[in-house]
Amino acid sequence: MADPKINELMERIVSLCKRRGFIFQSSEIYGGINGFWDYGPLGAELKRNVKDLWWRSMTQQRDDVVGLDATIIMHPSVWKASGHVDTFSDPMVDCKVCGKRFRADQVDPQSGIAFRFAGAYDASELQTALLPYPEAARPVIKAELIRLAGAWFTKDSSSLNVSEVADDFKQAWARFETEFKLDGCPPMTDLLSAYLDGTHFQRSNEAVTVIVPEPNHKPRAEKIAKEFYRRRGLKAPELLAATATTVENSIAYCGECGGELTAPRPFNLMFDTTVGPVRSDENIAYLRPETAQAIFVQFKNVVDSSRVKVPFGIAQVGKAFRNEVTPRNFTFRSREFEQMELEFFIRPDEVISTLAGRVATLADPDLDLANPQRHWGWEVWHKYWVEQRIRWYESIGLPRVSLEEYWQKKEELAHYARATVDILFKFPFGTQELEGIAARGNFDLTQHQQHSGKSMEYFDEEAKQKYVPHVIEPSAGVDRLVLALICQAYCEDEAPDDKGKLEKRIVLRFHPRIAPVKVGVFPLLKNRPELVEKARAVRDLLRPHMNVFYDDTGAIGRRYRRQDEAGTPFCLTIDFDTLGETPELRDTVTLRDRDTMKQERVRIDELLPRILPLLR
Amino acid sequence: MADPKINELMERIVSLCKRRGFIFQSSEIYGGINGFWDYGPLGAELKRNVKDLWWRSMTQQRDDVVGLDATIIMHPSVWKASGHVDTFSDPMVDCKVCGKRFRADQVDPQSGIAFRFAGAYDASELQTALLPYPEAARPVIKAELIRLAGAWFTKDSSSLNVSEVADDFKQAWARFETEFKLDGCPPMTDLLSAYLDGTHFQRSNEAVTVIVPEPNHKPRAEKIAKEFYRRRGLKAPELLAATATTVENSIAYCGECGGELTAPRPFNLMFDTTVGPVRSDENIAYLRPETAQAIFVQFKNVVDSSRVKVPFGIAQVGKAFRNEVTPRNFTFRSREFEQMELEFFIRPDEVISTLAGRVATLADPDLDLANPQRHWGWEVWHKYWVEQRIRWYESIGLPRVSLEEYWQKKEELAHYARATVDILFKFPFGTQELEGIAARGNFDLTQHQQHSGKSMEYFDEEAKQKYVPHVIEPSAGVDRLVLALICQAYCEDEAPDDKGKLEKRIVLRFHPRIAPVKVGVFPLLKNRPELVEKARAVRDLLRPHMNVFYDDTGAIGRRYRRQDEAGTPFCLTIDFDTLGETPELRDTVTLRDRDTMKQERVRIDELLPRILPLLR
Repeated sequence: MADPKINELMERIVSLCKRRGFIFQSSEIYGGINGFWDYGPLGAELKRNVKDLWWRSMTQQRDDVVGLDATIIMHPSVWKASGHVDTFSDPMVDCKVCGKRFRADQVDPQSGIAFRFAGAYDASELQTALLPYPEAARPVIKAELIRLAGAWFTKDSSSLNVSEVADDFKQAWARFETEFKLDGCPPMTDLLSAYLDGTHFQRSNEAVTVIVPEPNHKPRAEKIAKEFYRRRGLKAPELLAATATTVENSIAYCGECGGELTAPRPFNLMFDTTVGPVRSDENIAYLRPETAQAIFVQFKNVVDSSRVKVPFGIAQVGKAFRNEVTPRNFTFRSREFEQMELEFFIRPDEVISTLAGRVATLADPDLDLANPQRHWGWEVWHKYWVEQRIRWYESIGLPRVSLEEYWQKKEELAHYARATVDILFKFPFGTQELEGIAARGNFDLTQHQQHSGKSMEYFDEEAKQKYVPHVIEPSAGVDRLVLALICQAYCEDEAPDDKGKLEKRIVLRFHPRIAPVKVGVFPLLKNRPELVEKARAVRDLLRPHMNVFYDDTGAIGRRYRRQDEAGTPFCLTIDFDTLGETPELRDTVTLRDRDTMKQERVRIDELLPRILPLLR
Repeated sequence: MADPKINELMERIVSLCKRRGFIFQSSEIYGGINGFWDYGPLGAELKRNVKDLWWRSMTQQRDDVVGLDATIIMHPSVWKASGHVDTFSDPMVDCKVCGKRFRADQVDPQSGIAFRFAGAYDASELQTALLPYPEAARPVIKAELIRLAGAWFTKDSSSLNVSEVADDFKQAWARFETEFKLDGCPPMTDLLSAYLDGTHFQRSNEAVTVIVPEPNHKPRAEKIAKEFYRRRGLKAPELLAATATTVENSIAYCGECGGELTAPRPFNLMFDTTVGPVRSDENIAYLRPETAQAIFVQFKNVVDSSRVKVPFGIAQVGKAFRNEVTPRNFTFRSREFEQMELEFFIRPDEVISTLAGRVATLADPDLDLANPQRHWGWEVWHKYWVEQRIRWYESIGLPRVSLEEYWQKKEELAHYARATVDILFKFPFGTQELEGIAARGNFDLTQHQQHSGKSMEYFDEEAKQKYVPHVIEPSAGVDRLVLALICQAYCEDEAPDDKGKLEKRIVLRFHPRIAPVKVGVFPLLKNRPELVEKARAVRDLLRPHMNVFYDDTGAIGRRYRRQDEAGTPFCLTIDFDTLGETPELRDTVTLRDRDTMKQERVRIDELLPRILPLLR
């Protein structure tokens, strides 16, 4: 459905990610595991930088947010209280024939002829019983027996009138005896009494419907239906009567084999496991499907131990797991992922009203969104966080034009949410969510209060009253953000090679703050010890402060190109001028900018003051 | 078993950890979940610092190590190849009576009398059948029936000679009729035919043994044995004959109830889950029990994408999970934990020999362990990493005297290991492992090569040959290290209060590098705007570079005390001299050292140059 050019762009990005060690398929040597991705050397650094900047912007650079690092496996009651056990599910349908499972809302509509088979019975023992007869006779005898037994089955009677069948069969047998010379074979009666006594034919009365494109594809439908009965234990299924219907755009059939689908059933997206040595229902636990709940669960402990006062937030970064039915779009929707979530607790509007005399809303004429005020109501706090988050994305290299702010409509909101804004990024495969910022009222704390029996009330010393705080939740996905940063940074342009000829260049224009490697350090030649020694000194000067990549292999142009692909913003070349060949250039190096490809001479002792501020 | 004083010390540490927000029990409001711990605001920062320092010392500060960040859930074949599916297990025994499970090597030996019961049968229906008879008669009739039926059972015959029993019972019945006036009650034959026909008495021939301290505790043994049969479906078990034996120091019995234990069975310590929408055996996956395997699995991808050359290492930090049977010692042995693992790949000694002419061993007279050399064999590389790791621990505040270096003996080594050194820390609860540094040969890469069918060979351009590299693995636990740092830092001494009176002080003497908060910033008084403004300016000056805690509440002494408990190495007080009351002290602040409690005046513009180098 997507534009082929866009798919091609994504393919080039995925390919670069693997080639340069940003992202590998998890367990690739074992054929991979769907929905799981590993970060290679460059990817691991990029992801670390993103998480670190988020954490520092949330905690270190603010007075009103503290951190938390909770476990992935928590008490299962957490997920009962949060609603995840009951409602965190996708409606799924199963193909009754091939067993494939689909999300009910992702079944492809099909048109054609639907053959409905009323049931089948197992003719496998009949085949064994026919072995004493001449080979040529077997299919004929079998067909006759099936015709007769089949007639019985299709009548759907619970008992077989053996004598009636025997009479019919007797007539046929007379013909067979002549035709196939059955002298010396077991008599007809043996066959009949053994195989028509109503127990040898295992039978299924379960009907199944199979769709095929054309009426003359009936044999294909029969083959698929037989597979259905085979999976139900009939070794050699013989189908009962079929009826045919024309269907248009039906979502009742499997897109793979045309088999009938089950009715939709909820499929919980939480991974479960068993904690402790005994495997029992009461020991089932879940891998957290989000990091947020741990914050609510530890709310009281944080309040009691950290001298925080509402309004304040608790931030957490960590892995979460969802057993997605269809992981897709590279790392965008994966089964194991990382989240950066903040729960920012605020006073209920009533308390603000009592305390400040009024409650500021977005309609307030003198609203300064950069400076939180005591009289801000939830609406303003929500908008404040939307604005904060967008500014943060800008600060790491996602310009505002690459983002979209989507305010969910009333009817789209979860029942407890007062407002939710999605921050979307324009990925090559579509505009998709990076972060959701929700005003969740006091739903979560109240749920945990009810389920745990522990009070989640906060005593507000200024307001002199107790309340369950309300919350604003900016919740971002690390992996999709890393992917967005790579997509945004990916660029193909042209650069001169060592002979000045223009060649295609792939460059990742990462913001220096997030670039995995900050500086490439190159001695002009690797076989000149004095150059190497000086280059290593420069490397050692920078290294305590930033990631440096030392490279002495190949022409300088090739080394630049390699760092361009890695997204390294600066490269330094140590040459003979550095050593003093041109005296006024002694102890200077060439500083080359990744994006402009411009080069300038910079004194070694000015490198840190020059580069460091760009990384913070 | 441990010294009560030591337990008391651990209790004080655990209490401080909760009170100050270092470590909370996971899901505490739901009663907790055994073996899972959360890090609160201070703990999360401490842990981050530890991981960050490890990562930077491994990757940023070296040319020869790159990072990786792989998923927790990998393809299940990874754990078949690594041996974890088959052998990563503890031998477990179950109590046949109460169902408690124990590690076979942790069963407490018991002495006493062991009563062995041959079986039991269910007398519950008999009780119902006796209802029509007078209340006083029931136990007597029942006892007689049981005596007879019991005799039958103990003979262990497969059929009951009803007529024999009937004869015996008839004689008894004559007595009962007189004694209890059974006129009008159902006749004896009804009772007999209904309850002695061999089907009404549900029976168990499973023997069970129960240990009790004294022979006259037999009733207790019977009670426990009855519970055993009750759990096997007998509603009202009547025990068959018992035999008694004296036992000494036996580990065959449950420490909780005295019931018989099963034979040891392996219990795999990996948590399992199901990936994908279909729950089937082939979709079982495991939460990684260690981070190391991902490094081996991605070895080729890293080599192909990162321009690394043997010798080089791949470092990873991340969560791992082990379904420990008995999590213990606070966070030391938990079920969800974090590891910092390095796999450092080296040339096989044969290749080194060819290339360098000789292979340096620990016996080498001119060995300089600080400077890796081309001719180092695995033995020297192994020792190099032991030394590196100990130096790193020293650099974050664990002095060499707090550590022990334990060289595993030949017979303790895993079959593939050539040498393993454990670095132990002297915890209050015992000297326990922080890190293991193993020389693992090429075992792991070879295993994955065999199981995946993908070559793990590396082409060495210098040696012009292919080989599977050998590996040295320094593998550290983050959580136990954090605990070690807290234990090492924990100190109780005395400090003067605001009136100069000495009072007890709790202080965490963290190395500034790992301290969660680096600087506390205090305006002397919070109701003097000029002090507050200046203090905030100082806070904002430091904040881009480090974690700062701003505190304006309470007497300065109390604020110091709070930061002492948090382990904050420096506190700054902004007072009237800062504002210029004593002109020569304008723009200076009081810098107070946590450990010496000494105070000195420092110019504000000298704070960063003074503090920053101590944090790196």
